[in-house]
Amino acid sequence: MSVSVTGAEALLRTLAAHGVDTCFMNPGTSEMQFVSALDRVPGVRGVLCLDEGVAAGAADGYFRIAGRPAATLLHLGPGLANALSNLHNARKARSGIVNIVGEHATWHLGYDAPLTADIEAIARPFSSFVATARTAGDVAPLAAQAIAAARAGEVATLIIPADASWDSCPPAIPALPGTGTIAAPAARSIPTPTPRTGFLLSGSALAEPVLQMAARLHYATRAPIFANRYSPRLPRGRGIFPVQRLAYFPEPAEAMLASLDVLYTVETHAPVTFFGYPGRPSTLAPPRCRVEPLSLPAFLDVASGYLPAPTETVEPPPPPPTSDEPLTPELIGDILAALLPPGVILSDEMISSGEAVNARLARAANHDLLPVTGGSIGQGLPVALGAAIAAPERPVLALEADGSAMYTLPALWSFARENANITTVIFANRRYRILDVEIERTRSASPGPLARRMLDLSSPNLDFVQLALGHGLPASRAHTAAGFAEQLATALQTPGPRLIEAILGDPATFMPQK
Amino acid sequence: MSVSVTGAEALLRTLAAHGVDTCFMNPGTSEMQFVSALDRVPGVRGVLCLDEGVAAGAADGYFRIAGRPAATLLHLGPGLANALSNLHNARKARSGIVNIVGEHATWHLGYDAPLTADIEAIARPFSSFVATARTAGDVAPLAAQAIAAARAGEVATLIIPADASWDSCPPAIPALPGTGTIAAPAARSIPTPTPRTGFLLSGSALAEPVLQMAARLHYATRAPIFANRYSPRLPRGRGIFPVQRLAYFPEPAEAMLASLDVLYTVETHAPVTFFGYPGRPSTLAPPRCRVEPLSLPAFLDVASGYLPAPTETVEPPPPPPTSDEPLTPELIGDILAALLPPGVILSDEMISSGEAVNARLARAANHDLLPVTGGSIGQGLPVALGAAIAAPERPVLALEADGSAMYTLPALWSFARENANITTVIFANRRYRILDVEIERTRSASPGPLARRMLDLSSPNLDFVQLALGHGLPASRAHTAAGFAEQLATALQTPGPRLIEAILGDPATFMPQK
Repeated sequence: MSVSVTGAEALLRTLAAHGVDTCFMNPGTSEMQFVSALDRVPGVRGVLCLDEGVAAGAADGYFRIAGRPAATLLHLGPGLANALSNLHNARKARSGIVNIVGEHATWHLGYDAPLTADIEAIARPFSSFVATARTAGDVAPLAAQAIAAARAGEVATLIIPADASWDSCPPAIPALPGTGTIAAPAARSIPTPTPRTGFLLSGSALAEPVLQMAARLHYATRAPIFANRYSPRLPRGRGIFPVQRLAYFPEPAEAMLASLDVLYTVETHAPVTFFGYPGRPSTLAPPRCRVEPLSLPAFLDVASGYLPAPTETVEPPPPPPTSDEPLTPELIGDILAALLPPGVILSDEMISSGEAVNARLARAANHDLLPVTGGSIGQGLPVALGAAIAAPERPVLALEADGSAMYTLPALWSFARENANITTVIFANRRYRILDVEIERTRSASPGPLARRMLDLSSPNLDFVQLALGHGLPASRAHTAAGFAEQLATALQTPGPRLIEAILGDPATFMPQK
Repeated sequence: MSVSVTGAEALLRTLAAHGVDTCFMNPGTSEMQFVSALDRVPGVRGVLCLDEGVAAGAADGYFRIAGRPAATLLHLGPGLANALSNLHNARKARSGIVNIVGEHATWHLGYDAPLTADIEAIARPFSSFVATARTAGDVAPLAAQAIAAARAGEVATLIIPADASWDSCPPAIPALPGTGTIAAPAARSIPTPTPRTGFLLSGSALAEPVLQMAARLHYATRAPIFANRYSPRLPRGRGIFPVQRLAYFPEPAEAMLASLDVLYTVETHAPVTFFGYPGRPSTLAPPRCRVEPLSLPAFLDVASGYLPAPTETVEPPPPPPTSDEPLTPELIGDILAALLPPGVILSDEMISSGEAVNARLARAANHDLLPVTGGSIGQGLPVALGAAIAAPERPVLALEADGSAMYTLPALWSFARENANITTVIFANRRYRILDVEIERTRSASPGPLARRMLDLSSPNLDFVQLALGHGLPASRAHTAAGFAEQLATALQTPGPRLIEAILGDPATFMPQK
């Protein structure tokens, strides 16, 4: 056998052989070899995205649900640039991505053609692994390295010049390099937990089986169990042990931790405020509280010393309100809690509406919450897309603030094209509402009319029903609790994508807790 | 006087004092001090953009028309990341921008809060000047440096930590640093031009007075005058000497240069292909042709040796077609040529429709063409916004491919909010049409169904009328020449923004020249 393949074919073969079977892409000329190879190399599904932020966010959502990486395919430096803010979120989520970026042919690079840029320098702040193929023969071995890194939760950027993709190379598919054996952490005993002993969990320490163990610990010792607010995935609902998510604003977060003498952090670090504010510390635990890392095995070891927790019966929520009251985040939370079927995936980019809704969802049927991990808005819709592709059997809800939705709105088109079972709820308060709070917190002077206009999304109002229809999605608008409940019930009973614009009433009623 | 100001106020005062009176912004918490200061420090107009790509592209368009920089205001590393691809275009256009990026408070940076990123590293590949203020006292002096760099056509990134913006500093407004005296280039004589002597102009060498001089040279010697296709601004129309824009694809571009013995490049470098293709050189001039740089003064010196060119009378175009023929780029070009009033600004992101339309616009009334300079699509609508803000008295047309429009579509909302006099024409062929050509050119195998689906923007069709209405813009759809001509005439007679979705007919008739 001396059959050879192109570099592009070698890439697809290596991806497919190692289970990277989905590629969220927005390709251009330098990536045409890969696109063309989709028909010749089976095993990789291309999902077209209309911009690269959608592709990167979808790959993040895919990893959070599938537990294994998808690939992206991006066009040169500027295409990569458009993906960076969602790669930032993916990195903070520790979502592995095989981030493939086309490059000019090697011999074309010296000519400073318009699209020429320093792709490695652009990738580095957002990637743990960056490599550029020099020849077609490099592609498969580098792809194997990138896949191994991505499986370990890294954003791995693989840059492939056009000639490396169209030239020929041997067809062998390399094995994945070992990622090294991880030494078992030394067994560690900690003093018997008390109600003044906190545990802050994140990452895989928030998987459902770990939460069952956390419940044992909690019920036996009354030690409080907290969740890192920015963990990539949080199982939640009335059948799941309810960890306390640390609040967004520093004062309520501090209050949650105020009585602790020690806080053990499992797969996360000491809790800090999201922003720095004048005259406030960045840390959230009280000064006398020791903060100590604890490995997940050590945590499980501690928890396994206690008996299984009693089954707590959480009352299901009451039927959804059906009044003509103007919508508020609280009402929407009540309606969601009542209507969500078990097994739903929630992509949460509700921003100022989030506290009220999430407080109510603890009583909903079991579900997975996917928060914004890196604070960069514009991930909610793309993450929903990736989650829906990863788990087509599970309904997905994208709970999305109106301002945040506008960064990556063309995700809606991919929802429609892929017939993804995603219900999008737009929380339309027609402001960057969170900034109303933040402008006070940063002790900026009281905002005048020019400042207020920079936080205002009315004049003109965005019409999300028309925006959704324009992207090919069915859509409706709700002003009242009854209307929203009816539209949500319809959406949940109807497979495929759908959008509901929820017009929020008096903003005074849904200011986030300060 | 010992009055002090905040760092944010110092920034606005310095901007305003040096004529940077417009700021395209998408701020967040770390930028609230600047937003709040807008009401206290007069002289800087904030233009809210719904994503950072719009802000950066608008600042580019502003510079191209105003000839002086605007500022941007972006939120931390991820906000900057969203702006990068249009900063790439701005950089290639040599459009100066005072690119202001907020940062966490200095003492908050060490805690790795979710939004923390290496902002300087993110900015560097796209900026000539990068500086971070350490204190409030740094802000005004660094702002002066950034303004000086931006006035010289550089993307100057100024990073301001939140504490540097809320702390106090002296109110003095620093002068701009000198940018050094530029030595006059040595006088240079070149052999008398012949029809085999080409001149390739770009940048300020394409200003209208220079074109008048170029006309003298051309009419006296028959030396051909070419324009760099990616020059930031090209004056054009039947009253302006018609330089030849080098074609996009290499074969016609090569043909334009085939007979040359020497090519002088003025404010640009040797012409190269946009992409590298298998088996093709990257350079476009024939091998025997010498390519030599020539300064603009030297060029003017050569040209001034010839008499003023005769006034050539170019026939105005015929009245617009009013048939029921399906729309093609050719028909749209004919209609635009007939209906455009003098002084229009055209933002050109037509991609595969561009050749046909631009060929016809040489007979239109005088106008300025603003092309995509860095090849990164998603600039057309933002550049139109910036141009309209810079020159409110001039009508602006955004000529926009459907695929390209989707990268920065929320620009439409800023059109509506600012009541910008912009008519947007969407060329809806419902494909990444240019890639149909490029996939063949890169000798990818003939695309199968999976590959073709990655180039296809139908299923579902984007409905640009609904998308525009959703952003608050009046909009209509045209299928025929008569319909388009009527809708365009209405748009041109009506101040304010408006969008026309031009549905293109049989694609076989508008494939770009290969």
